Amino acid sequence: MESSLLNEMVEAFKCLPGVGARTAQRMSFHLLERDREAGLRLASAMQQAIDKIGHCQLCRTLTEHEFCKICSNTGRDSSKLCIVESPSDVIALEQATDYRGHYFVLMGKLSPLDGVGPEQLGLDLLENRFETGEIKELILATNPTIEGEVTAHYIHQLAGKHDISATRIAHGVPIGGELDYVDSGTLSHAFDGRRAY
Amino acid sequence: MESSLLNEMVEAFKCLPGVGARTAQRMSFHLLERDREAGLRLASAMQQAIDKIGHCQLCRTLTEHEFCKICSNTGRDSSKLCIVESPSDVIALEQATDYRGHYFVLMGKLSPLDGVGPEQLGLDLLENRFETGEIKELILATNPTIEGEVTAHYIHQLAGKHDISATRIAHGVPIGGELDYVDSGTLSHAFDGRRAY
Repeated sequence: MESSLLNEMVEAFKCLPGVGARTAQRMSFHLLERDREAGLRLASAMQQAIDKIGHCQLCRTLTEHEFCKICSNTGRDSSKLCIVESPSDVIALEQATDYRGHYFVLMGKLSPLDGVGPEQLGLDLLENRFETGEIKELILATNPTIEGEVTAHYIHQLAGKHDISATRIAHGVPIGGELDYVDSGTLSHAFDGRRAY
Repeated sequence: MESSLLNEMVEAFKCLPGVGARTAQRMSFHLLERDREAGLRLASAMQQAIDKIGHCQLCRTLTEHEFCKICSNTGRDSSKLCIVESPSDVIALEQATDYRGHYFVLMGKLSPLDGVGPEQLGLDLLENRFETGEIKELILATNPTIEGEVTAHYIHQLAGKHDISATRIAHGVPIGGELDYVDSGTLSHAFDGRRAY
């Protein structure tokens, strides 16, 4: 490719998820040919965010403050704690539900092969919160993958030691889905988990 | 959304082509959670490129130097000039063909409704080059859209005034394509443009 700065920019764009060589080239040309101002704005927003955003001291989600908005909101129900894997799960739950409790963001899931153990997920921090006795219900909202289930199981046992009841979000046929398009694992889960009509 | 810096970053990502709200969020979280270093590298590569990359004084393509690599390469055939709409077309032609002449990059196409006339495409610059008498063949490789055809036609007439012969790249059925999947415009073009076997 012609220009080495252009080349570097295209290469750098490939770090984004779902961006390959062609998309990286398209993005670079778009910014250079059509919207340099937006490109500079994006670059500075990225630098600012990466420099200043750290983790909430209470729930570990991403925030530029010591405590995130949800943790520092005294109007929320502090007896409920919802365990999720990532900050985007918090956003998804906040948008979809009327849950008004608190969250704890693992920033990952138990995965010993990748070197992710209880410490990496901040479970010591979580246990400290269990010890305060404030939490009455724990909602396990990790993903329904093998690692997610193992993580939920581990935290459930941890909560058991402190006599905290834990619930798991329901798995089953998605709303609007059709039975014959749903995979057999989900279907058997939905069947086993049937409830009184 | 929780953090305002995060919010700004997500908003800024939407300036990229093909990136909507969800992808912007995914990209932001990916950089913040998994690869902050690559994010900083991308931000600085963008700033560098946007700051320093301008246009080649001869062919108008993107370059951080006064003349681009192709224009300053004395080994290339300066009697041939290929007209394309954008720098990515140059890359595509360089990769696909063994063309060793020069390029002229319009950085757009004639589109009076959007205020793009001959001046915006640097056609005065092109005419200066015609006047030197160095160019013997003009290859019109604008896109086969209405604007691209109009642009090619306009430049063809311009070249005619200087007795320069112009050719147009062939349009027809793409290699590997199947006749019944090709649109009727392309097919009629391919039929009209048939050549001795």
